[in-house]
Amino acid sequence: MKTILVINPNCTESMTNCMRDTLSKCSPADTVIDYYTCPPEGPASIESVTDAIRSANVVMSNLPEPKELERKYSAFLVACYSDHPLVHSLRECVHQPVLGIMQASILTALSVGHRIGIVTTTKRYDNLLTDGVRAMGIDNTVFVGVETTGLTPLELESKSREVVEESLAQCAKRLVQDGGADVVCLGCAGMANMGDIVRKAVGDNVSVIDGVIAGVHLLWALVQMKVQTSKQGVYQSLRVNPFSRI
Amino acid sequence: MKTILVINPNCTESMTNCMRDTLSKCSPADTVIDYYTCPPEGPASIESVTDAIRSANVVMSNLPEPKELERKYSAFLVACYSDHPLVHSLRECVHQPVLGIMQASILTALSVGHRIGIVTTTKRYDNLLTDGVRAMGIDNTVFVGVETTGLTPLELESKSREVVEESLAQCAKRLVQDGGADVVCLGCAGMANMGDIVRKAVGDNVSVIDGVIAGVHLLWALVQMKVQTSKQGVYQSLRVNPFSRI
Amino acid sequence: MKTILVINPNCTESMTNCMRDTLSKCSPADTVIDYYTCPPEGPASIESVTDAIRSANVVMSNLPEPKELERKYSAFLVACYSDHPLVHSLRECVHQPVLGIMQASILTALSVGHRIGIVTTTKRYDNLLTDGVRAMGIDNTVFVGVETTGLTPLELESKSREVVEESLAQCAKRLVQDGGADVVCLGCAGMANMGDIVRKAVGDNVSVIDGVIAGVHLLWALVQMKVQTSKQGVYQSLRVNPFSRI
Amino acid sequence: MKTILVINPNCTESMTNCMRDTLSKCSPADTVIDYYTCPPEGPASIESVTDAIRSANVVMSNLPEPKELERKYSAFLVACYSDHPLVHSLRECVHQPVLGIMQASILTALSVGHRIGIVTTTKRYDNLLTDGVRAMGIDNTVFVGVETTGLTPLELESKSREVVEESLAQCAKRLVQDGGADVVCLGCAGMANMGDIVRKAVGDNVSVIDGVIAGVHLLWALVQMKVQTSKQGVYQSLRVNPFSRI
Amino acid sequence: MKTILVINPNCTESMTNCMRDTLSKCSPADTVIDYYTCPPEGPASIESVTDAIRSANVVMSNLPEPKELERKYSAFLVACYSDHPLVHSLRECVHQPVLGIMQASILTALSVGHRIGIVTTTKRYDNLLTDGVRAMGIDNTVFVGVETTGLTPLELESKSREVVEESLAQCAKRLVQDGGADVVCLGCAGMANMGDIVRKAVGDNVSVIDGVIAGVHLLWALVQMKVQTSKQGVYQSLRVNPFSRI
Amino acid sequence: MKTILVINPNCTESMTNCMRDTLSKCSPADTVIDYYTCPPEGPASIESVTDAIRSANVVMSNLPEPKELERKYSAFLVACYSDHPLVHSLRECVHQPVLGIMQASILTALSVGHRIGIVTTTKRYDNLLTDGVRAMGIDNTVFVGVETTGLTPLELESKSREVVEESLAQCAKRLVQDGGADVVCLGCAGMANMGDIVRKAVGDNVSVIDGVIAGVHLLWALVQMKVQTSKQGVYQSLRVNPFSRI
Repeated sequence: MKTILVINPNCTESMTNCMRDTLSKCSPADTVIDYYTCPPEGPASIESVTDAIRSANVVMSNLPEPKELERKYSAFLVACYSDHPLVHSLRECVHQPVLGIMQASILTALSVGHRIGIVTTTKRYDNLLTDGVRAMGIDNTVFVGVETTGLTPLELESKSREVVEESLAQCAKRLVQDGGADVVCLGCAGMANMGDIVRKAVGDNVSVIDGVIAGVHLLWALVQMKVQTSKQGVYQSLRVNPFSRI
Repeated sequence: MKTILVINPNCTESMTNCMRDTLSKCSPADTVIDYYTCPPEGPASIESVTDAIRSANVVMSNLPEPKELERKYSAFLVACYSDHPLVHSLRECVHQPVLGIMQASILTALSVGHRIGIVTTTKRYDNLLTDGVRAMGIDNTVFVGVETTGLTPLELESKSREVVEESLAQCAKRLVQDGGADVVCLGCAGMANMGDIVRKAVGDNVSVIDGVIAGVHLLWALVQMKVQTSKQGVYQSLRVNPFSRI
Repeated sequence: MKTILVINPNCTESMTNCMRDTLSKCSPADTVIDYYTCPPEGPASIESVTDAIRSANVVMSNLPEPKELERKYSAFLVACYSDHPLVHSLRECVHQPVLGIMQASILTALSVGHRIGIVTTTKRYDNLLTDGVRAMGIDNTVFVGVETTGLTPLELESKSREVVEESLAQCAKRLVQDGGADVVCLGCAGMANMGDIVRKAVGDNVSVIDGVIAGVHLLWALVQMKVQTSKQGVYQSLRVNPFSRI
Repeated sequence: MKTILVINPNCTESMTNCMRDTLSKCSPADTVIDYYTCPPEGPASIESVTDAIRSANVVMSNLPEPKELERKYSAFLVACYSDHPLVHSLRECVHQPVLGIMQASILTALSVGHRIGIVTTTKRYDNLLTDGVRAMGIDNTVFVGVETTGLTPLELESKSREVVEESLAQCAKRLVQDGGADVVCLGCAGMANMGDIVRKAVGDNVSVIDGVIAGVHLLWALVQMKVQTSKQGVYQSLRVNPFSRI
Repeated sequence: MKTILVINPNCTESMTNCMRDTLSKCSPADTVIDYYTCPPEGPASIESVTDAIRSANVVMSNLPEPKELERKYSAFLVACYSDHPLVHSLRECVHQPVLGIMQASILTALSVGHRIGIVTTTKRYDNLLTDGVRAMGIDNTVFVGVETTGLTPLELESKSREVVEESLAQCAKRLVQDGGADVVCLGCAGMANMGDIVRKAVGDNVSVIDGVIAGVHLLWALVQMKVQTSKQGVYQSLRVNPFSRI
Repeated sequence: MKTILVINPNCTESMTNCMRDTLSKCSPADTVIDYYTCPPEGPASIESVTDAIRSANVVMSNLPEPKELERKYSAFLVACYSDHPLVHSLRECVHQPVLGIMQASILTALSVGHRIGIVTTTKRYDNLLTDGVRAMGIDNTVFVGVETTGLTPLELESKSREVVEESLAQCAKRLVQDGGADVVCLGCAGMANMGDIVRKAVGDNVSVIDGVIAGVHLLWALVQMKVQTSKQGVYQSLRVNPFSRI
């Protein structure tokens, strides 16, 4: 029996619950999925580098020690759609596979299409995700870019469903029709239940990727392959861990 | 119950058997893996673009019709370590996910490391794989290159085990020590059982990826996610299929 | 007296004839141009990777053996506007220069301008040609992209002249006015006689390149220079040729 | 009278003192330089992403509030040679110019040479700095890479001077002789007083850049130009600051 | 007391005067700025490579000998917004720092934002500046492109203020709104006094960079840092100087 | 009858004669080749940007007026192996095709191989040619780099034949064996008669390109195709020509 830890690095429980709902319908067999939500001293949503620093620090300070994490879990998913520093930090701390939902959705998209785009929330995220995808070593032959609704992650919940759906649909259409995308990635953990809106907007020929679903299944595949995070290069083990409480 | 078709696009049965052996120890639960070997009018191994054309044509002429493939299989793996045209052709013909073992190993490597390299056979493959990885949209920040043993795919079997192991170990060491790779991909279907040689050469900190194993598990994950090949862009459905026999 | 072989890798004779007409008015002095049309078991036009595999296989199976080709011809032109695998396969098989009309038109365009674009047929070709130009090592500083008419190669002949001309003119204008192209390449063998339409649409300042004309003259130049295909790298001679009938 | 805040984001006071010594000999006229050292709950040196998260969080939690920072300082220098998240976070929080010493040294190097390299400490930093320079939008035409001594930042102080100097000199020579660098950047805050060692190793023709010195003077220039951090894109002002204590 | 030489490489005195006016309000303390205008045999404005050749030759033929330049000046600014050959030639001839206003504005922009664009004059300059920025090693992640008014450098003075301001404002808005720029560089020496027009058009959140102001202050900073042009690589000292009159 | 003008932009007559000898054996039929040597006020050889400015200015000042050039010549070859500004200036001034020998050799190399390298003279040229090839829009997938003999252009004539041959052979071998080149370009006009040395060093499988020969034949091909320099973009006609004497 394998256990995957899904980490919501913001402190909004309703987002964790939304992921739990989504995954309850489609998680791998023989797998337990545990959920961790950032304690309340973290940010309610992650909208900036400043938020990401706070989020990463609070999570790293409160998660069990790495040895304990390694004992309990087979893999780790960081459920923030960004190049969240927690992904890299966890890879430094444990041997098991670690993915962020951005990385998971992009790698999945590359498996089923050839022109990939992202729909996301605010304008700042256009910059952050463009840089994040590039930091994965993906170039702009296959990555066609980011479209933004202008709504913040929390507004995806608080705004009227009609406004959210309309703006999301428009973004997805621009990606496909103007940008030439053949795959659309849902670029926010808070979009976990919005795949159908996008599919309706762009038609069945376009593949739509939910990073939370993609992440859990890719991690499951990595565990099955018995592949672990490389400790040779940038993720080599830490000499000193500033978050260690032992 | 899901069924994955593993296609060996050369006509060397012993290679198919080698993959079967490898996968018999580590295939996903609740999954049947079927194996298809290229009929004898195809090439014994694929060492050139000319071979790849012949291979792709023989396989496409002999495989069941696309409708039949779609009825029987959940996903397809092309077990030649190259940017084999069969991967793209099958994606044009069916809706299910299709991967080549090169694509599968590179996407897996990107999940667990940050500097990826390939050990392969002949000098020509240095060129072909460098171009193939780049055609996936992967740039040379994360892809550090290819090292070649100078042995052909068939010589991996016919040459003395000592010679094969030594040359493979040297390649892997060069990738890691000179090229800075933290992940090594086994760049030939015929290297399916040689992961341990490489692991011994480069040490446990380096992740070593077998494309056949990676391919089957990635496909399984894609099937679980219910993600299919995009039919919007370059893989849109064919108006006329020159291989159709109906 | 030099002989160049122009290979139409689809089985539509009228396209071969169209090229013959075009070249009859502007071929190099002291040169015989022979024409080869793909036998009828090949595709009527090449609109996908699947078509290209079929096309390449049928041509390679039916062309004279490489030794014979080398005896009779000084150079070879593959008259399909794409990164057709036949170009690479022939380079593996013979020592003489081999060009595709895509390669020829791009290299010519780079000689006379600094922002190059292509007008072509279907949306799939937007992807295929973008990737094909990039596979030549040409980056997007000088390559501004592809505009598509939405008409298939065969529709260039079957649709009313008015519709064809109007859609082609609009494409060319978008390339120049929005994309900033200063050279327009005609991106389909079936556009061989449509240079004037494009020239009229974009004005005399823009250079318009016909790949069939460009190909024959570039090959002639390569022959005059006594330069042959390099046999050192990716085009090294084959150990075994799967199409050999000897 | 202008005031620049130099932030040492690790808690090793001796490094702050070393910077103070260096700058005492060459700071701009009419300028006060204040120094801030990370409180002791931060890391002693920054050798990983995990350290950088901790460092950024401790500094952001303890620095005066942004309004206060803006009142007191004209510009900010983050004295860690990396793409430290604090640089981006501070740019989100204040209007004044913010540089890290990596950014400062690279921009300075681009002003006086055409092939830039970095000498730094550990192997992990080879990866982190290569990615960091690329994240600035600098490509590998002008950036020739990183050479590492294998000594950690703290070992630069604790190891014998002879060992440190020899390893640093060897790195610098490799950058220039093998890598073709014409400018060498000192890639660690702890190398602030080691410019002469490098200059002696590579000769007077090579420009050697100290990021701390470069940073203070570039910031001074930006202040003189009356240029501020753009608040239009990725550095737009925060709606909510998770570190705010007001 | 430091002396910086500002070289206007065209022979239009009014442009030199405009720069003098601009800099009189914001030049560094303790610094003398000398101005040099190209003699009348040079071009009135630099609108082509042909103009740049003429300009560079006339200036190099008439400036004092390099030894004299080195004795009198601490740094040199070439005040033509382009990759003017004079920048590279002067770097070959003297040890002191040399910048063009294009280089200065781009490096300054990279210090305060993350998506940089240029507003300039004619369509030809779109090509020349795109190539010029790229020649600095800056890639298109951070460089979003060029917008052109269609007015020549001289028309910036001769056309009605209203027409000039309107076209400049439109360009700047397109860069920011469509191109996503967060920093706008004024791409012509003749735009030295037009920063306010652009600022008004795009709002205070966008940083606007004047290359003449940026250049003088960056040079001042380089002088303070005691950094000189590298003589190791492409700017190594000349064996023979074709402009030497000694 | 067509006439091509070969311009030697340095004033060393022996280099012009060397080209004349080379071309006398292999120029296109029905073609007159005229030779122009830079007047004595130009540089004896072009070893720097400063030399190139001088060279371009002297040639532009002394060549016939553009109208006259257009009347007399069908095409123009600038016989300096570099991104010589004269190439771009002539393209601005005339409608006929203009190539430099660097451009001609690179485009020819791309026609017959897939990994291209250059052997040249001094270290400065390593930088200048790397930048020059990149300015053509050629990326480093196909361009493997430059190797330098350390001998200046004039030393190719003045040094003992043995020294020249040995250093050239070593360069070519490094390009092929270490760099993986399958085509070697002779990177100096003064190497026009040294193709055989290189061929002997690297073997018959490697294609060796002489830019002077390649240039004349490519130009001839462009003339035959009736393709002219685009006047739409960066080479649009000049409003004012600073070298006009009319």
